[in-house]
Amino acid sequence: MNQEFESTLLETAVTEISRLPGIGRKTALRLALHLLREDVSASVSLGESIINLRKGIKYCRECHNISETDLCPICANERRDTSIVCVVESVKDVIVFENTRSFNGKYHVLGGVISPIDGIGPDKLQIDSLISRVAAGGIKEVILALSATMEGDTTDYYIYRRLLPYGVKVTQLARGVSVGNEIEYTDEITLGRSLQNRTLFSDTIMN
Amino acid sequence: MNQEFESTLLETAVTEISRLPGIGRKTALRLALHLLREDVSASVSLGESIINLRKGIKYCRECHNISETDLCPICANERRDTSIVCVVESVKDVIVFENTRSFNGKYHVLGGVISPIDGIGPDKLQIDSLISRVAAGGIKEVILALSATMEGDTTDYYIYRRLLPYGVKVTQLARGVSVGNEIEYTDEITLGRSLQNRTLFSDTIMN
Repeated sequence: MNQEFESTLLETAVTEISRLPGIGRKTALRLALHLLREDVSASVSLGESIINLRKGIKYCRECHNISETDLCPICANERRDTSIVCVVESVKDVIVFENTRSFNGKYHVLGGVISPIDGIGPDKLQIDSLISRVAAGGIKEVILALSATMEGDTTDYYIYRRLLPYGVKVTQLARGVSVGNEIEYTDEITLGRSLQNRTLFSDTIMN
Repeated sequence: MNQEFESTLLETAVTEISRLPGIGRKTALRLALHLLREDVSASVSLGESIINLRKGIKYCRECHNISETDLCPICANERRDTSIVCVVESVKDVIVFENTRSFNGKYHVLGGVISPIDGIGPDKLQIDSLISRVAAGGIKEVILALSATMEGDTTDYYIYRRLLPYGVKVTQLARGVSVGNEIEYTDEITLGRSLQNRTLFSDTIMN
């Protein structure tokens, strides 16, 4: 390795940067050489922000979203509806839903979906803690907002079965033609579902 | 900004990472969330390697290549031919040439090429120091290994004129059809040059 670059500092930086997903050694070298052309402060800010992020972030004890405090700002926010919980796969999904600005309830981050092929059973996910939250009372509706894949559907069904005894309303995101997509390029299963779940046009134009 | 992510640590890290060339906020978020899933040591190693790189690297006083010492390992290497200097645009090009393992001379890193449009004149490049190296004696050949672009050609010519008084041999990288490229897709100028500079086939098969 040392043969390729004459500098071990460069070699170490390139190796570390190329450990990131989707970044190969060529891109890592380009980034490292870019940093060398910039001010020292740029490298210090970048390096420190990475270290501080990982050291400072914990997970919310309630919803398992990332947080800098025991309870994340969403769970701590008293103006949000505690009676409705949106179940998502990942922290990323919380950000995506928050950016829609169409949801004012709470979240529950599972940490993945059930996938026997990848060795992910229900015990590896935050499903027990979801059941506990519902069992504690106060939650009227659980929205399953998992991927529209086989694994997502399996997880939806598993959670639905686990929630049955509590009599909570369990809903799922609508399946249909994506906004902006052409019918010609939409798959048959989605089209079938969007036919079954068709909505009154008058409801659409009133929104 | 704070609205998008509930965490300022995440916001800071994403902003810093997205300052890198070719990395947008979406990719930066993906990388940050990846680091959060990994061990703390991964983020610490990455962050520190970036800071150490920028703080530890200096530029060789002789050839302006990056180095951890006053004189870079290539300039300090007594087994390399000091009579031949390969002039390149950037630190990256030194790495590229070193990886060919076909050059055993020294380098001279210009730091770019003359480009009036970008406001880069000869004074912004390490041309004076190249002339000084040649003037000091001991160099028999200067290889111009700049890009085959108009800016590269202009810089080649400028350096050639500056070197004329010293009677040093000035050569240029061969222009020709790239190995592996089809004739059909090679531009006419390259084809014209490769006709002019055609080599004896017997020389080729002997190498």
